[in-house]
Amino acid sequence: MTRGVEVTELVLRDGHQSILATRMAMEDMVPICEEIDQAGYWSVECWGGATYDSCIRFLNEDPWERLRTFRKLLPNSKLQMLLRAQNLLGYRHYEDEVVDRFVDKSAENGMDVFRVFDALNDIRNLERAMKAVQRTGKHAQGTICYTTSPLHTNDKFVEMAKRLQDMGCDSICIKDMAALLKPQPAYEIVKGIKEACGDEMLVHVHAHSTTGVTLVSLMKAIEAGADIVDTSISSLSLGPGHNPTEALVAMLEGTEYHTRLDKSRLKKIKEHFAKIRPRYAEFESKFIGVETDIFESQIPGGMISNMESQLGQQGAADRINEVLEEVPRVRKVAGYPPLVTPSSQIVGTQAVFNVLMGPFKVLTGEFADLMLGYYGETIAERDPKIIEASAKHAKKEPITCRPADLLNPEWEDLRSQAEKLGGFNGSDEDVLTYAMFPQVAPGFFKTRDDGPKNLSQTPEQVAAAAAKAAAKRNGITGPVKYDVKLNNRVHKVSIEPTEV
Amino acid sequence: MTRGVEVTELVLRDGHQSILATRMAMEDMVPICEEIDQAGYWSVECWGGATYDSCIRFLNEDPWERLRTFRKLLPNSKLQMLLRAQNLLGYRHYEDEVVDRFVDKSAENGMDVFRVFDALNDIRNLERAMKAVQRTGKHAQGTICYTTSPLHTNDKFVEMAKRLQDMGCDSICIKDMAALLKPQPAYEIVKGIKEACGDEMLVHVHAHSTTGVTLVSLMKAIEAGADIVDTSISSLSLGPGHNPTEALVAMLEGTEYHTRLDKSRLKKIKEHFAKIRPRYAEFESKFIGVETDIFESQIPGGMISNMESQLGQQGAADRINEVLEEVPRVRKVAGYPPLVTPSSQIVGTQAVFNVLMGPFKVLTGEFADLMLGYYGETIAERDPKIIEASAKHAKKEPITCRPADLLNPEWEDLRSQAEKLGGFNGSDEDVLTYAMFPQVAPGFFKTRDDGPKNLSQTPEQVAAAAAKAAAKRNGITGPVKYDVKLNNRVHKVSIEPTEV
Repeated sequence: MTRGVEVTELVLRDGHQSILATRMAMEDMVPICEEIDQAGYWSVECWGGATYDSCIRFLNEDPWERLRTFRKLLPNSKLQMLLRAQNLLGYRHYEDEVVDRFVDKSAENGMDVFRVFDALNDIRNLERAMKAVQRTGKHAQGTICYTTSPLHTNDKFVEMAKRLQDMGCDSICIKDMAALLKPQPAYEIVKGIKEACGDEMLVHVHAHSTTGVTLVSLMKAIEAGADIVDTSISSLSLGPGHNPTEALVAMLEGTEYHTRLDKSRLKKIKEHFAKIRPRYAEFESKFIGVETDIFESQIPGGMISNMESQLGQQGAADRINEVLEEVPRVRKVAGYPPLVTPSSQIVGTQAVFNVLMGPFKVLTGEFADLMLGYYGETIAERDPKIIEASAKHAKKEPITCRPADLLNPEWEDLRSQAEKLGGFNGSDEDVLTYAMFPQVAPGFFKTRDDGPKNLSQTPEQVAAAAAKAAAKRNGITGPVKYDVKLNNRVHKVSIEPTEV
Repeated sequence: MTRGVEVTELVLRDGHQSILATRMAMEDMVPICEEIDQAGYWSVECWGGATYDSCIRFLNEDPWERLRTFRKLLPNSKLQMLLRAQNLLGYRHYEDEVVDRFVDKSAENGMDVFRVFDALNDIRNLERAMKAVQRTGKHAQGTICYTTSPLHTNDKFVEMAKRLQDMGCDSICIKDMAALLKPQPAYEIVKGIKEACGDEMLVHVHAHSTTGVTLVSLMKAIEAGADIVDTSISSLSLGPGHNPTEALVAMLEGTEYHTRLDKSRLKKIKEHFAKIRPRYAEFESKFIGVETDIFESQIPGGMISNMESQLGQQGAADRINEVLEEVPRVRKVAGYPPLVTPSSQIVGTQAVFNVLMGPFKVLTGEFADLMLGYYGETIAERDPKIIEASAKHAKKEPITCRPADLLNPEWEDLRSQAEKLGGFNGSDEDVLTYAMFPQVAPGFFKTRDDGPKNLSQTPEQVAAAAAKAAAKRNGITGPVKYDVKLNNRVHKVSIEPTEV
């Protein structure tokens, strides 16, 4: 008898988020849902902050409608989402009632598994969301953001797991968003959690593949007792994404572990996304390879492209290496936060500012808030001098309480603001959309009735582009024919460019 | 105390062979040799059949000069080559004296480690080359080609290792050219070899990364006692290539194993090839991802592109899936040979013929020879009906002896033929070049004095192409200016194409 290992399929959320800039339209997911539903996954991750954002910002899709569609098309599957705890799917802390309402609505619309994380691993920020999930009777997964620093030890992560258990979570996730989790720590942390929390505590491991080493880490995590691991179907895997589902299955063959995944269905799912992927080439991550420098910089792939674009806007694209070296310094000053939304953006932007304007000469509002405790507690003490500068800059005092304790009730305000927007449909779901993306929601409400936009190329466009590229590769065999308007007369002419 | 694991760097041979169609010019390797020499590798693989072929076919480089250059630039490194045993670097069996002379000359020009393999794992084909290496005092590595079939069991591979040991090899290589070696068999075979051959027998594992799972296999092989593993620097790794060197280093950190590689030098090596690689984009493998279907078809990546091109020439490119399904049938008929040069080409081409003309209606000469035993013995019996058809087709009888036993002395003939060629320089090395590539050598001898050709784009061309692509991505902002010749007069006009 071999031990079963369960698998969460990421392709409908983190897979295309990491590789195709979250642009995949619902219409390209619908046809494959039945195969996914039958393939034997533990859960199907399909919803989160970036997909929600992309729905209303780019795709003119109602994210709640997307959720309901998944619910209908995946009747046998547990739907899973990634929830930024007190930040929900936004970038700030919300008052507790908003958290409760968001979780209620998500559960009501079909969500089953809530993976709840806080960017700083501040357990106080997780409490309300976890309680809300528990009240709905759905699966509450407590999350440890994995990172490395002089302060982050395996024991500390195990300690955090114990606190998550005390909070009543149904499972514990080790979330390795930057592919920093090497095999040995993967083994030790999972082993430690199982010892501290009991063998019956489900341990779920999420790892990106950027550094090329995390499939081995999943193997070691499984050997240490991990119950569930995250993968993405091979045709949307690797690079900044995740380990391929089929490779995980193959990896376990012949060992004392097995999955219950149906390989013939995996093949169909692979083929579906292999067909779809080229149509999103425009959005594809430029980085499809392996990058082990991340072990030193600890900077996730998506963060690098953000910083590159910020530098580019300042005409300083050539200073990316200085910024990469600055990030660990900023992180130390800030008490070694893990780098994940939103801390990755906050630290990254401050590093850009430091390089362009001098170290901490100019502080962003968000970085000042981070220094002052308005995002929560960090594992290490933050630099007192920069705290002082932050207080001066933000005209606020440092805090030590749970940040959301300072917030006033805001639900009614949010509703009345939303009600003023054209196209608002009166639902709590719309209020939540407005609450989380106040800049984007108004535009979306107005255009919602136009229906979803698919930003990919059509198969015909892809074929034409491929043919064109092939013609170019082979050299053009004859002159190209154009209609040329010259002195107001149109001539049919064959020409060749004077320069290439 | 942790146990040291040694590493062979593949980038100078199999790395660019697998990813850049073996096109890398010596001039792009020279500048990084010093870093490679100092990085702490067990050996540096830098020579083999495909690089030799590419040198004389495409790059107008003398492969022996390349070897001597490596010898000079890598004074502290063991140089390693891949040798097709009785086939040397060619596609047929050579008479024993030619084998002896090739090995002597290779050793004399600087080769240290000879990885000797036979495509059928017929141990008789390995004997002469192994003995030749032993006589030079260099390192003779006996190789097991890993494959899967109903007949290939872990025990059989261990048995073969024992026979290689009896032959006096200095180490044993498990060569997984199609990324079929899963973690558990990797563990069991290495363990089995160590038990059968003694712990002091060096075990070296070579694996491609195509299926996405073989870094885990390397981990398991190491846990079972493997002494040396093969990797390629990250910027020329993955896809049809190999696991990244830096990922291997990271994988072992914190475990009971360690490498002695210098990470700062690896970084420089990585950056060098990252800079070079885009210049060879034209030659880059289209398949840079993960493909687990190979576990079913057992077809290495390079073989698929071969078959695609053969089909394309017959206007039957759309029948590739039929061919992929035919390959395992052909392989069964032929007694389950591993698929590696030359058996991969022989089986692949016959599969193409079967699909286009009907099963075994037309036999290639090479396939008939394979069926009749002229490449050696296979693990399983070959199909008697097809043996009969092969005998009729080839007008030859089946044989059971070592194929090279049937060959007459040929060295003097080869020399006198070579001497007739313009540009032949009189050396035994040139005779060997002619012996191995009789079609290509005559042209190369003639043009040799023109000096090496670098087929990559210049950095300027790469930059221009990138700028052009960017312009295209962003949409062309104004009309494009051309010189148009119309009725024999040249007009300066601005135009836009009528179709894209």
